[in-house]
Amino acid sequence: MSAPVFLLSDFGLDDVYVGVLHAVIANDAPGAPVHDLLHRVPPQDLLGARLQLAAALPYLPDGAVVCAVVDPGVGSDRRGVAVHARRDGRTLWLIAPDNGLATALLTRERPPFGSTLQANAAWQLARANDTTAAGTTFDGRDLFAPAAARLARGDDPATLGDPIDPDTLVTTPAPALGRTGDGGTRGRVVWIDRFGDLVSDVPAPERYRVRLGSLELDGPLPSFASVEPGAPVTYVGSVGTVEIAIRDGSAAATVGAAVGDELDVTPLP
Amino acid sequence: MSAPVFLLSDFGLDDVYVGVLHAVIANDAPGAPVHDLLHRVPPQDLLGARLQLAAALPYLPDGAVVCAVVDPGVGSDRRGVAVHARRDGRTLWLIAPDNGLATALLTRERPPFGSTLQANAAWQLARANDTTAAGTTFDGRDLFAPAAARLARGDDPATLGDPIDPDTLVTTPAPALGRTGDGGTRGRVVWIDRFGDLVSDVPAPERYRVRLGSLELDGPLPSFASVEPGAPVTYVGSVGTVEIAIRDGSAAATVGAAVGDELDVTPLP
Amino acid sequence: MSAPVFLLSDFGLDDVYVGVLHAVIANDAPGAPVHDLLHRVPPQDLLGARLQLAAALPYLPDGAVVCAVVDPGVGSDRRGVAVHARRDGRTLWLIAPDNGLATALLTRERPPFGSTLQANAAWQLARANDTTAAGTTFDGRDLFAPAAARLARGDDPATLGDPIDPDTLVTTPAPALGRTGDGGTRGRVVWIDRFGDLVSDVPAPERYRVRLGSLELDGPLPSFASVEPGAPVTYVGSVGTVEIAIRDGSAAATVGAAVGDELDVTPLP
Repeated sequence: MSAPVFLLSDFGLDDVYVGVLHAVIANDAPGAPVHDLLHRVPPQDLLGARLQLAAALPYLPDGAVVCAVVDPGVGSDRRGVAVHARRDGRTLWLIAPDNGLATALLTRERPPFGSTLQANAAWQLARANDTTAAGTTFDGRDLFAPAAARLARGDDPATLGDPIDPDTLVTTPAPALGRTGDGGTRGRVVWIDRFGDLVSDVPAPERYRVRLGSLELDGPLPSFASVEPGAPVTYVGSVGTVEIAIRDGSAAATVGAAVGDELDVTPLP
Repeated sequence: MSAPVFLLSDFGLDDVYVGVLHAVIANDAPGAPVHDLLHRVPPQDLLGARLQLAAALPYLPDGAVVCAVVDPGVGSDRRGVAVHARRDGRTLWLIAPDNGLATALLTRERPPFGSTLQANAAWQLARANDTTAAGTTFDGRDLFAPAAARLARGDDPATLGDPIDPDTLVTTPAPALGRTGDGGTRGRVVWIDRFGDLVSDVPAPERYRVRLGSLELDGPLPSFASVEPGAPVTYVGSVGTVEIAIRDGSAAATVGAAVGDELDVTPLP
Repeated sequence: MSAPVFLLSDFGLDDVYVGVLHAVIANDAPGAPVHDLLHRVPPQDLLGARLQLAAALPYLPDGAVVCAVVDPGVGSDRRGVAVHARRDGRTLWLIAPDNGLATALLTRERPPFGSTLQANAAWQLARANDTTAAGTTFDGRDLFAPAAARLARGDDPATLGDPIDPDTLVTTPAPALGRTGDGGTRGRVVWIDRFGDLVSDVPAPERYRVRLGSLELDGPLPSFASVEPGAPVTYVGSVGTVEIAIRDGSAAATVGAAVGDELDVTPLP
């Protein structure tokens, strides 16, 4: 049986782009299950894409092929890469532009934008010779999806291109966290989900106080149900960072928060 | 072959939540087909979720596993349940929070929020012991999807948790219909679809007059094509209730209607 | 193994309609892979649907079944058809209303709204006799998806209905292109994608100048990376027509362009 392929992109769902990725994989790896992780990453939001990928990572099956395309550099000479990685006894393939999205799987960065995944090996994706097809550059279709399909059907990764040193993979670092006067950490809102929950980039201490604008909350609380409807709550999100929500409401709307807003997290005894 | 899994939620498509459900099912039930029924139920709109689920119900294959997560009570002590149901010689599994969404499959309520489905048996989903994973409560990922995967791969439902009496399943009743002075029924707009069609909760009489604001229509007409472009039309919707649409237009925009608006339906001779 | 089914519609993702198509196909052709090409075609935008389908067409696997439902005439007496087509040694099935969407696969029209596909044969979809089911007309569910499932599982197309002459398929022509004074072509913006890129209906000359409002660009350039961030660029899109984009920005927003806006393309020596 072919390995399952998991797609993540900023292509959105308003155009046939994602459908074309499905078509390519169905053509090149017949019968391979194709799953959509997420396609509505804000256009070219590498940081958000890495956060969302990190949240899904621990749940992917052994041998899964991730094809992740958020690619501000499309058409430039940035490399496309295939990374073979290992985590907790599982292996994963990551196909992506070499722009930091690949390194979302690797150990060199602090959480939540790194992870405990180990890169075993990597290859640079070679372009097909027959670039005679008319039309604009669409590497998702022409470079990344075909590579994902080949790995899904069990091809030798050496057929994708030349091996490269995993240590040469581009690391686009997440913005640095700052320090606050009282021994805390200054971070940012990096994602706002459908429910208006605010996801930060600050790893959650065991006990902490978070300040965002005029809002000040102690946490973490175990769940939304710990507070009354309409009340704010802070808790540890799925990538291990501080989050803020309003039970049965939108924290983003209530607080007027946006991606990029700063917040302070101070450990509590 | 594994049974197909059908997902319905209010998780939306802007975050990786739905992708994580796919990952969990692909991991726990390799090769099980995973289909998305709908994920853009308005947040916590149990009534809308039940209506949309009811519309899909008659078309699900025998043995299908439905995993439906609209869950205002996440993190509280509400139960997660697995319900084994039967309809017209077919069986279905429903995995859901026990908040009335499960009872969308059962016979105790009036249509469209009940159905002709019979509950054979039910189980309360037990939580895994290793709740050591950091992060907020995400029962879709940690409770419901794993149970759906187990049933899809053919596990004994007794492995999910203790059996419970189906009669103890929570019934959150749909809002009561009222009566009008002329022997009619007062109901509400409960769903507005992409095309601006208005779906009510009033079961359609054989012949009827519907009033919504200043609009008054006799029906049902067999199809949109029964009227001129731009003209309003009423007909019987897919769950058997009165609907109102504008041919080649949006009834919601034209009438200025919103979910919750009242309408009156009077039987005609 | 069942053939894969590819769905395209204007049903959107806010309602359970697409989920019901999946249910029908999973029921009638168990195990057939079901892929979503696109469902957010603007309501009843036949021209846009044809453009997006044309962009996916070259990538569909041999034997794929396309079920495309954009159907302003639903409920009228327009035919539903199954078309067996051939292109570059591959065969495809197209299930669609006979309203010009089917002819997106055929050779009789100029690109991008025709293609090099040859229609081998066609059948008119017969309606099931048991139209006793309550509810409004939903041909996607009751006519098109069941036909797609039958072809996916390998049924003889003769079981779908009577054969018809492919030459009788309705051709709704794309709007005619005009001529400009300087030997160029006047066309229109026919699609705007998620990134704000503008897709026109003018086949791209080898070298050209395009004018849209006050914007004047020479092209084609090979990729976005050929210009600085924020700069406009014109290139040949995936269906072979002139497109305009802003690198790392939205051409639609910057230029204030909308679907239907006119543009002029003049060949350059």
